[in-house]
Amino acid sequence: MIVYGRNPVREAIRGPRAVARVWATDRAAREPWLATTDPAIVPAGEIERLAGSPDHQGICADVAEYEYADADWVLEGSAAVVAALDQVQDPQNLGAICRVAECAGAAGVVIGERRAARVTPAVCRASAGAVEHLAIARVRNLADWLASAKEADAWVYGAAPVPEAVPYDRPDYSGRVVLVLGAEGRGLGSRVAAACDQLVALPLRGRIESLNVSAAAAVLLYEILHSAGGVDKGT
Amino acid sequence: MIVYGRNPVREAIRGPRAVARVWATDRAAREPWLATTDPAIVPAGEIERLAGSPDHQGICADVAEYEYADADWVLEGSAAVVAALDQVQDPQNLGAICRVAECAGAAGVVIGERRAARVTPAVCRASAGAVEHLAIARVRNLADWLASAKEADAWVYGAAPVPEAVPYDRPDYSGRVVLVLGAEGRGLGSRVAAACDQLVALPLRGRIESLNVSAAAAVLLYEILHSAGGVDKGT
Repeated sequence: MIVYGRNPVREAIRGPRAVARVWATDRAAREPWLATTDPAIVPAGEIERLAGSPDHQGICADVAEYEYADADWVLEGSAAVVAALDQVQDPQNLGAICRVAECAGAAGVVIGERRAARVTPAVCRASAGAVEHLAIARVRNLADWLASAKEADAWVYGAAPVPEAVPYDRPDYSGRVVLVLGAEGRGLGSRVAAACDQLVALPLRGRIESLNVSAAAAVLLYEILHSAGGVDKGT
Repeated sequence: MIVYGRNPVREAIRGPRAVARVWATDRAAREPWLATTDPAIVPAGEIERLAGSPDHQGICADVAEYEYADADWVLEGSAAVVAALDQVQDPQNLGAICRVAECAGAAGVVIGERRAARVTPAVCRASAGAVEHLAIARVRNLADWLASAKEADAWVYGAAPVPEAVPYDRPDYSGRVVLVLGAEGRGLGSRVAAACDQLVALPLRGRIESLNVSAAAAVLLYEILHSAGGVDKGT
């Protein structure tokens, strides 16, 4: 896989994937952290051809295929917080969610296999390389996996701006937590929503009908991982 | 200004700007809310030409120039929360911040005039049309405006992942609040940072060095506007 962009290549070098080769423009090659990789110096046009994108910042690398984690392993820690994505198809959103999950200290991200973005070079770029340090798992059927997560003592919260949802800062998010996020517009699928222990909602005080899914992920993951938490834990 | 995309055009119609004319593809024109605008039906190529972007979803509109608000007016409410942006140049980030500010219930967004994105059609698109319902002000010098905001009894918080910053969930964010956000990589300028009453930091638990500025804005604006708040308010 050809990973491109400054942060994506730097984090690929720092992370577990084997990096076979690095290409850089003369200018980009001046970055000190690139020196040890002995990059091939090529014109920007050649990097654009290799990357298949103009968004390369003068750097790309040939990196081993992305290794997905096992979903049950991701949830193993007794206080693990996992973001589960229901048919999030936009690579920008998947990348942005992975970046905030890595920064907030989530144990990982679980994505369904069908109608969902996977970890492509565009996702690596949108995540600023965070995918290299984050456990990402793919599961065949997300609703089924949520059921097994509940059997493993996880509390499953679904983000949904619906009347039956509780305010997002109400639950006590201690213990193993799965936060389920759906695609914009479509929201959570009915089987996935039914598999949640509780639905939580972010207040929308303006006239716009929804937050971007990565903005909602940011608010909710920081609330779950870093805020004092509220009072009740129950449906 | 030619605004393009489904949500941007819809919110422009719902908002205060005069809409002179709407163009839509045959398919996009089936949206019920478009019927009252009597759109001109044209091929997608013509919409792409008018919009100057392929990201038009079959709809564009000729809309009056964006009217900026007065920065002091934006901060007038006794519990107003305002996001102030220091040289945020990426239209995607400006749009995403405007969207989350509108959803969270912020009083508005203040941006410096120099080296900063302004409200362009790309920003309208990235904000999902939120700019139509949000007060956005431009000021000549952001540090000077922050000084005047403090004279108007606002408490000015700067987001900065530096050792002297306090954890973001510590301050009592009651009253008039200005939240200052800097561009990724560059952070807050020294004059702007010096103009803040207090710096606040989001914990970074992973190996990535920073959150995207719009993700930081989402977490902080929801914390300020919706969380119970912490204990101390002081530098």
